[in-house]
Amino acid sequence: MNSAPNGSFASVDASAHLIEAITQKRAGQPLRHRQIARLIDDFVAGRLPDYQMSAWLATVACQGMTLAETTALTGAYVDSGVRLRLGGQDRPIVDKHSTGGVGDKVSLVVVPMVAACGVAVAKMSGRGLGHAGGTVDKLESIPGLRVDLSADAVRRILRDIGMVITGQSDDLAPGDRATYRLRDVTGTVDSIPLIAASVISKKLAFGADGLLLDVKVGAGALTPDHATALRLAETMVEVAYSFGMPCRAVLTDMSQPLGFAVGNSLEVKEALAVLAGEHVPGLSGLCRMLARVMLQLADPNLNDDTADRRLADTLDSGAAYDQFLRWATAQGAESDVLAQPALLPTAACVATIAADRPGWVTAVDPRAIGHAALRVGAGRLVQGTPLDHAAGVLLRRRVGDYVERGDPLAEVHHSGGVDAATAIASTRSAFTIGAERPTAPPMVHQVLSPQLKTGPTTVTA
Amino acid sequence: MNSAPNGSFASVDASAHLIEAITQKRAGQPLRHRQIARLIDDFVAGRLPDYQMSAWLATVACQGMTLAETTALTGAYVDSGVRLRLGGQDRPIVDKHSTGGVGDKVSLVVVPMVAACGVAVAKMSGRGLGHAGGTVDKLESIPGLRVDLSADAVRRILRDIGMVITGQSDDLAPGDRATYRLRDVTGTVDSIPLIAASVISKKLAFGADGLLLDVKVGAGALTPDHATALRLAETMVEVAYSFGMPCRAVLTDMSQPLGFAVGNSLEVKEALAVLAGEHVPGLSGLCRMLARVMLQLADPNLNDDTADRRLADTLDSGAAYDQFLRWATAQGAESDVLAQPALLPTAACVATIAADRPGWVTAVDPRAIGHAALRVGAGRLVQGTPLDHAAGVLLRRRVGDYVERGDPLAEVHHSGGVDAATAIASTRSAFTIGAERPTAPPMVHQVLSPQLKTGPTTVTA
Repeated sequence: MNSAPNGSFASVDASAHLIEAITQKRAGQPLRHRQIARLIDDFVAGRLPDYQMSAWLATVACQGMTLAETTALTGAYVDSGVRLRLGGQDRPIVDKHSTGGVGDKVSLVVVPMVAACGVAVAKMSGRGLGHAGGTVDKLESIPGLRVDLSADAVRRILRDIGMVITGQSDDLAPGDRATYRLRDVTGTVDSIPLIAASVISKKLAFGADGLLLDVKVGAGALTPDHATALRLAETMVEVAYSFGMPCRAVLTDMSQPLGFAVGNSLEVKEALAVLAGEHVPGLSGLCRMLARVMLQLADPNLNDDTADRRLADTLDSGAAYDQFLRWATAQGAESDVLAQPALLPTAACVATIAADRPGWVTAVDPRAIGHAALRVGAGRLVQGTPLDHAAGVLLRRRVGDYVERGDPLAEVHHSGGVDAATAIASTRSAFTIGAERPTAPPMVHQVLSPQLKTGPTTVTA
Repeated sequence: MNSAPNGSFASVDASAHLIEAITQKRAGQPLRHRQIARLIDDFVAGRLPDYQMSAWLATVACQGMTLAETTALTGAYVDSGVRLRLGGQDRPIVDKHSTGGVGDKVSLVVVPMVAACGVAVAKMSGRGLGHAGGTVDKLESIPGLRVDLSADAVRRILRDIGMVITGQSDDLAPGDRATYRLRDVTGTVDSIPLIAASVISKKLAFGADGLLLDVKVGAGALTPDHATALRLAETMVEVAYSFGMPCRAVLTDMSQPLGFAVGNSLEVKEALAVLAGEHVPGLSGLCRMLARVMLQLADPNLNDDTADRRLADTLDSGAAYDQFLRWATAQGAESDVLAQPALLPTAACVATIAADRPGWVTAVDPRAIGHAALRVGAGRLVQGTPLDHAAGVLLRRRVGDYVERGDPLAEVHHSGGVDAATAIASTRSAFTIGAERPTAPPMVHQVLSPQLKTGPTTVTA
């Protein structure tokens, strides 16, 4: 008997299997592990067209996933690619992930602090998109520094220097990359199980021994409200644990930008200032707290006081700053620039926004500041757009500060392009000045207990 | 300043608009009329790729639609194409739609009965897919009969003969056709608002003055359970009314095949028998009841008794049979075949399935019978497959009949192909024989009142 080629039969099977999975999911029945594994396998192998996969993703975004389903999806993403295998080091390796925010240069401070305490840190970072920046973009404002490292280079620099920061590799979790491309254009980015599987699968493929999750809460965050941020944090921690990866999550504030600098070289300079021992309000305290949790991931018996003392020592002694310099040099940075941070890219024009009335700064909208930075070239709306590394916004006041009329609120750093006026207007609109002294928001909203409930949790959307 | 070509801008706008609509819908907020109109317009014009539209359809299938949204979608489908404009006739024109079932030859009986009473009937019919047959396939078993009529031919035959049955035109509601193609491959066929918009938009574009909806309930139906069938019926009636089209819906039984014949020429012969005055259990009574509702759609003051008497007269006098013959001839049927129904296509082989025990027939599974007919070539799983018009299943017993061991239950009519054995097994498996006399299911489950509640109704999935 004649039969269609195997590929054709496989596609008909894949299609029928997907339709059954969509119908089942819409009826409220959880998908089994092997159903999810097959969907991702079929999609990565080209047996399912985009329009079928996007319908499944949209259904999942509506119906949510149980913990077992989210774990199955995470495993399917990992199995779609290779594992980096960081192992073979003489000390525990920790990793860190932030859900992203405006002015988030925490990694640039925390990673060398932790590494200077003798705990290896391997971090895979992304580029910025929309109003939130990405660590890779910030690092590329340092002349010469490379983040497109081979797997061998990652392992070598980690072994020799005790820390490494690399861009995302196409080999790790390609199933996540393929589905993310569809989520981005179908309004299914903000689904908790899809975010959790995406983040944790990349971390598992990268292969550190422990993971700190910095989940932002507030207007500038992926999850603006506390309840949603908490569900995302719990889901990611539970999924990581179900693969045996120790993981801690902290909910931190993103109701205003972190510190003062927003924009790539502006943020590097601010990070270097913290590493040099300067106290930066809204940044230094948060960095010490997150670094402590990373140390405790590597050594669960380390108490808070001891950890805090070690971390303070790395700043006071210059060890953290030295650690950053040695690492940046190992990844190609020009040493004369690092020796003089003033040589980092600097904008030609600085426009100062002044207060138009006296009063207390009651709000600094992080989205408006992020949008302003984006308009002067510090960020991008479409992947692949080149950046102006010198551009951005430098706050002069934060929530809780008092200003007189005419006092500077912020500076817009730009190269004189047409969008500067829009950026200046957006920066001005970010500030609310009121007659009553506000209560400044806490930097840390919640630290999730390492003891988590187990068993299936239904996570909606 | 340089700018991208208009098309490129439009696509980016269309994409952003769709993402907003998906996010809004997933958050439980109804879409506004103009949002829905724009989505369909963008999709039909090629400004939205399939993978984006399928994500929207999947989201709607999960979240449901309010009546206002379903009405907006229906209007958008209508506006995507032309309207046939049947008007200019000297009498009211009614249309009929069935949600489809096994052995559903009701239109072949009802349309000439109603037309013989002086009410014009214009019906646009589809082809069968899966276990359910389609009126167009049944009619094509009559040699010479054409259903691919031009708009002019539809209007001319309707004016001259008082009835017309045509296949679906590509000009009417192309937005529905384009989205149906995606629904079929993404598991989003069984969404009540999507079904309702699909059915009613085609009927509005066709343009009759009143519409009868025959919504099937039971194992062989699109909506097997009563509650879902009722919601579908109510939604379709409400949408039709919101466009000013009088509409009545009847929930009728599909827990076993209609009448005895399943398969194209077998069903035409059975319909002709009813038109010739023969009483066919499980078919004749249903046809009279549905025909009465169609007469009352054309004349709301007509009482049941008068309507029933007129309809009985059309059978007793031969007027309904004559009406069928004149109509079929006008659409090209060979008149010698119609004069002798025995000349219709007849299968070479007939396999009789006998009862293996004595007892009462307690169930005849319509899906198993439909599947059997499909296997011998009476139906298709993939659009475009040619049919064997003579093939099918002829029941010899229905639910409530008593059989002795060896009595015939059904005949499989086929041309001797390899799938006959499967069809015979499926037919045998359809029958359940029990020791207790069952209560035969009612033919009519519910007649929806023409007075319907108004205001938005949320319809889930």
